[in-house]
Amino acid sequence: MKPCILAISLFVGLTVWAQQPSHSHSAKRAFDFPDIPGYKTLKTDFHQHTVFSDGKVWPSIRVMEALRDNLDVISLTEHIEYQPHADDIPHPDRNRAYEIALEEAKNHDLLIVNGSEITRDKPVGHNNAIFVTDANKLVADDPKAPFAEAKKQGAFVFWNHPAWFPQSPTGNPIFSEFQAERVKKGELHGIEVINEYDYAEESLALALEHNLTIMGTSDIHGLIDWHYTEKGHERPITLVFAKERNLEGVKEALFAGRTVATFNNLFVGRNEYLKPLLEACISVASAKYRKNTSILELTLKNSSSSDLWLENNMDYTFYNHGPVFEIPAHGEVTLKVKTLKKLNTLELNLKAIKAFIAPRQNPELSWQINIE
Amino acid sequence: MKPCILAISLFVGLTVWAQQPSHSHSAKRAFDFPDIPGYKTLKTDFHQHTVFSDGKVWPSIRVMEALRDNLDVISLTEHIEYQPHADDIPHPDRNRAYEIALEEAKNHDLLIVNGSEITRDKPVGHNNAIFVTDANKLVADDPKAPFAEAKKQGAFVFWNHPAWFPQSPTGNPIFSEFQAERVKKGELHGIEVINEYDYAEESLALALEHNLTIMGTSDIHGLIDWHYTEKGHERPITLVFAKERNLEGVKEALFAGRTVATFNNLFVGRNEYLKPLLEACISVASAKYRKNTSILELTLKNSSSSDLWLENNMDYTFYNHGPVFEIPAHGEVTLKVKTLKKLNTLELNLKAIKAFIAPRQNPELSWQINIE
Amino acid sequence: MKPCILAISLFVGLTVWAQQPSHSHSAKRAFDFPDIPGYKTLKTDFHQHTVFSDGKVWPSIRVMEALRDNLDVISLTEHIEYQPHADDIPHPDRNRAYEIALEEAKNHDLLIVNGSEITRDKPVGHNNAIFVTDANKLVADDPKAPFAEAKKQGAFVFWNHPAWFPQSPTGNPIFSEFQAERVKKGELHGIEVINEYDYAEESLALALEHNLTIMGTSDIHGLIDWHYTEKGHERPITLVFAKERNLEGVKEALFAGRTVATFNNLFVGRNEYLKPLLEACISVASAKYRKNTSILELTLKNSSSSDLWLENNMDYTFYNHGPVFEIPAHGEVTLKVKTLKKLNTLELNLKAIKAFIAPRQNPELSWQINIE
Amino acid sequence: MKPCILAISLFVGLTVWAQQPSHSHSAKRAFDFPDIPGYKTLKTDFHQHTVFSDGKVWPSIRVMEALRDNLDVISLTEHIEYQPHADDIPHPDRNRAYEIALEEAKNHDLLIVNGSEITRDKPVGHNNAIFVTDANKLVADDPKAPFAEAKKQGAFVFWNHPAWFPQSPTGNPIFSEFQAERVKKGELHGIEVINEYDYAEESLALALEHNLTIMGTSDIHGLIDWHYTEKGHERPITLVFAKERNLEGVKEALFAGRTVATFNNLFVGRNEYLKPLLEACISVASAKYRKNTSILELTLKNSSSSDLWLENNMDYTFYNHGPVFEIPAHGEVTLKVKTLKKLNTLELNLKAIKAFIAPRQNPELSWQINIE
Repeated sequence: MKPCILAISLFVGLTVWAQQPSHSHSAKRAFDFPDIPGYKTLKTDFHQHTVFSDGKVWPSIRVMEALRDNLDVISLTEHIEYQPHADDIPHPDRNRAYEIALEEAKNHDLLIVNGSEITRDKPVGHNNAIFVTDANKLVADDPKAPFAEAKKQGAFVFWNHPAWFPQSPTGNPIFSEFQAERVKKGELHGIEVINEYDYAEESLALALEHNLTIMGTSDIHGLIDWHYTEKGHERPITLVFAKERNLEGVKEALFAGRTVATFNNLFVGRNEYLKPLLEACISVASAKYRKNTSILELTLKNSSSSDLWLENNMDYTFYNHGPVFEIPAHGEVTLKVKTLKKLNTLELNLKAIKAFIAPRQNPELSWQINIE
Repeated sequence: MKPCILAISLFVGLTVWAQQPSHSHSAKRAFDFPDIPGYKTLKTDFHQHTVFSDGKVWPSIRVMEALRDNLDVISLTEHIEYQPHADDIPHPDRNRAYEIALEEAKNHDLLIVNGSEITRDKPVGHNNAIFVTDANKLVADDPKAPFAEAKKQGAFVFWNHPAWFPQSPTGNPIFSEFQAERVKKGELHGIEVINEYDYAEESLALALEHNLTIMGTSDIHGLIDWHYTEKGHERPITLVFAKERNLEGVKEALFAGRTVATFNNLFVGRNEYLKPLLEACISVASAKYRKNTSILELTLKNSSSSDLWLENNMDYTFYNHGPVFEIPAHGEVTLKVKTLKKLNTLELNLKAIKAFIAPRQNPELSWQINIE
Repeated sequence: MKPCILAISLFVGLTVWAQQPSHSHSAKRAFDFPDIPGYKTLKTDFHQHTVFSDGKVWPSIRVMEALRDNLDVISLTEHIEYQPHADDIPHPDRNRAYEIALEEAKNHDLLIVNGSEITRDKPVGHNNAIFVTDANKLVADDPKAPFAEAKKQGAFVFWNHPAWFPQSPTGNPIFSEFQAERVKKGELHGIEVINEYDYAEESLALALEHNLTIMGTSDIHGLIDWHYTEKGHERPITLVFAKERNLEGVKEALFAGRTVATFNNLFVGRNEYLKPLLEACISVASAKYRKNTSILELTLKNSSSSDLWLENNMDYTFYNHGPVFEIPAHGEVTLKVKTLKKLNTLELNLKAIKAFIAPRQNPELSWQINIE
Repeated sequence: MKPCILAISLFVGLTVWAQQPSHSHSAKRAFDFPDIPGYKTLKTDFHQHTVFSDGKVWPSIRVMEALRDNLDVISLTEHIEYQPHADDIPHPDRNRAYEIALEEAKNHDLLIVNGSEITRDKPVGHNNAIFVTDANKLVADDPKAPFAEAKKQGAFVFWNHPAWFPQSPTGNPIFSEFQAERVKKGELHGIEVINEYDYAEESLALALEHNLTIMGTSDIHGLIDWHYTEKGHERPITLVFAKERNLEGVKEALFAGRTVATFNNLFVGRNEYLKPLLEACISVASAKYRKNTSILELTLKNSSSSDLWLENNMDYTFYNHGPVFEIPAHGEVTLKVKTLKKLNTLELNLKAIKAFIAPRQNPELSWQINIE
């Protein structure tokens, strides 16, 4: 008897018939961000776990979650050193989660990156190496070895949750000699400023000081739905601004530092990418004067999946709103700008108050508007 | 035949039986604000219309709306001069809307104030006189006469929507000789900074410059539900800080300028009342250090019906949130404050970024917190 | 000074600017029923009150409610004899509510019918005369007089809430000599089987026995939103099957008895109209056999605004559902019918279990389906 | 270096801190059914899969799902013969899913039953053996062998989805010699009448004819949330009426046939259990006459998590509802029963129209009510 062949005949059809897509659900949680001038905006999550280390799901679930969240690229980054399921999944090929995800994703528009988590106590801490070619070669006793091997494979490496309290009781990142040496040797290229539910301003400062790529990741072990969505949270992601929507494009962008980390309507990134991103999110749907007045009715649309919190950065005041307001995700707002006399063009200036280009520093956005 | 007596026997019972209270609905839209030290916080709407001028409902509906909104005090301020329903309601006693509302409210905990709207073209504009004793005596040709009469009756008078575009095409208030004289003569005491959907920073500036009481009102003509609630708006109201919860207390507070105007989570008021109001809205539910860390977990509860937008006004940073965050209405948030070493007390300093004590100036809030 | 002319210049613009339509809300509560072969299906409510008798709103609000509910025809049926607002609206022209509604509706696609309620103690009870030409002429002491006058004016007259407990403590209608005589004289043509929240099977029995037109009405005095919508109820309406969508068409249909009364997904009507109505509500979106099986996948769409409760009335069973199921309003359901062998056509037979063509008797629906 | 020990120190704390329970979500989907006279009502799902056969999650996720659904007992029934993950989880101990679930559940109030699925082509089909003592011993070539072994271990065995179309193209169950022999030998004790989204009336007929225990199961492979909850479905479960809430009690009840299968507000079971279950779900909150009438206001509460569809099975009619109505899950309804004269007691008789004690046969429910 051949169970596997038998199985195929038995099982074909059932799941296909029963599984109807749930569009409304997907639509609600799907990330959506516009491209910026010169680059594709790709939604990525490069820090996730499955049963192949200490996660609770088969890799295929991660692919399905990513599709629901409308991500463009993911990596399943199993702990190299931490294998609590070893009794059942013995001596695993460290590339298996990647291979299974790749198979699952093959009929979908989702890019899969091979990655692994290098997991040590401080000062090494946890680090993700992505774009590795063979994760098995990262297994080593010497903590420096996997970094050297990752570099050899051309991998992009970033420091995970540097402010993590079990390794730093103040909740502030400790940039040690180990990290300094890795950066100097070209073995450490990025840093998580957002991990799980947490954002550290000090990690952002480190990113800027040491020219590290700004990252945000979910670090998911259980289910995205349970850990984030149903609690009213978004999974943290990294927006990558790539010249092309393919693996090479993603890798080039990461090494070039073209990213913004985001979750829960918070945005963290360098001004050169965060400013155009937010400017691209907001478009002017209409701009015309209220009849017989010098009050400009300006309808702004937010094409993104994030609620945007904004502050009036002009001398002109509004007829209706106070100077601090929100444009909800995929929503719009009509500002009634008191321009005092009728203008042909307006330079609309707003500050994005939940977005940060440095600790406590907001990007200043600007649009040149032609008035009808 | 006596139809009225007949009617009583016919109609008793039906509406009582059928009308079941809709608690969930009421709960959702009910305003809720805590008292501040020394004063009761009363929720008021002193600008409303009924069929007795150009409104579309009988006064009893205004009472029911106020009860649903959990208001403490209302006034129905019919236009003295504008009577579009005069064909059906001829030569009305200008106190009728008040009398009917008073009758409707007699079994409820709602205070009714007699009021009227003095309605002229600019520079007079629209003005509400409340706490009048006989509205009929405000009928006059000379625009100064009703102000003089209102003063004689001891009424509190405020300038309605001074920035209203049909009377000011720039959307900015024009404080003319007429207003200057009224203020000087003690005939004008307040000014709407919020009317219907609109807030004018310039009106706030005028209130501060001329020492006028800050007012917010709905100016409702149709239904609160249709005009505000179902569009996602709150009706504008004036919070009055009274020594006692009665008509005399409300009147004294209005003349003393103890008010905050609010709608849609925007707050406008003098710092001496707005700061303690917002400090009273937020309480510390728990404050303790995360074990083995110097990270203070601080749970803040918002007892009000408004979403509060806040900004970290301390040097300490948060482990989880960015420096700009919201505590939702009747909700809570846990801040994880990185105090670097363990403290016994913390001075929590936050700025309320959708609250204004002057144009573009936010109140700075402070709480002294004992740590468990 | 001319206040009315002043007023026009003052008020133009404000409400138009502020009032944005609330599509989502309207869409949710809007009634929607398809036409049936040979007739337009018109949604009507012929029993409503305003401030012109004991209602709480100006007639214009009733027009706006009707537009939100997507009604085709309404009548405001003020009590002739019961005038609790007489102190403020003295000696009213009994046609005024009609005239004001007509003016309000003139730019909308809503038909207004002049009507009045004849209001007496039992055995006369309450009766609505609609399509009157002058309601003032119904004022009389003798209870028979208004019926005679209504007939003279060509009005359609129906008995309101015949089972109303204040006039019938058993909650059952008492068809007295008075009604018998009115029917015989051609002065009483219809009967409410649904009024406000109540449906009486005994009133349906009377309708069938005496050949009276079946009516359902809201009898609204306050607000439709508060009295029905927010409590999860629908306002009761009468569906009228008219040859043309105009007043003459409605009148002809009412006299011909072509109606169905409905609220809260309950339908009451003669089989000759209720059966085709429900058959028109449900259409077959697709019908094809599951590959390699004799299981017919049949997708049924419900184009109406009512949830339809149905029971399998065939010998064939379903692969998925039990024999009792719902097709939600504007929704669909896929039945998997086990036809045992592949058919070219199927006679789909369902019983509508919340619809009644006589007390406790459901209409049996049938569709001839061609299988792809 | 000892990665596992390292790991423990690294990981303690994080998930505990981050995981806040989501009460509102759990409350919404949690099953809730009252006990019946003499028995505890236990909610069970005895047909589920994990990565240890063709499921997509680690067994711990199944435990968490069961806790969210408020189940009392589950079994993870991996396919003995079908092992698509054998490359990664080679030669598994067939008891492993059970052991892991048992460990996960040890601090929770959830009973875990060891089980396995015997998976063959027709006429054998799929069958679940639960309460096995060693699943490894069910591995065999001869299809009769695992049944004999299961019996030897004292297991309870039921036939899965007998109407499953890939094995029966008409969608009707084929009770063959194989099943007849198993039943006769005491090797087959139950039958699924509900599996996944499907209910087969013919399977219910077989259960009654061959005295098999009526079962309903989810047969889940992916996530309960995605496959059921977010599509508006309930997972199918079996209610087991046990003398005691422990494994022995469950087993005894299953062999005794004391079950009801349910999903999506559909109930299937023997009258002796389904009738008392539904009678226990509904209680009388109040019963008193409307003043001056013979209309009995009867408030019925539904303590269960299912919407109950009911039909008036008395001669008395209702003042308000039609004879067919719903009591929503955890909700109530007030019937106004027209008893014609005042009674001291009422025998309330209702038919449960979405509940079945035989194909197309509903249980008739009855309550003796004392009137206040």
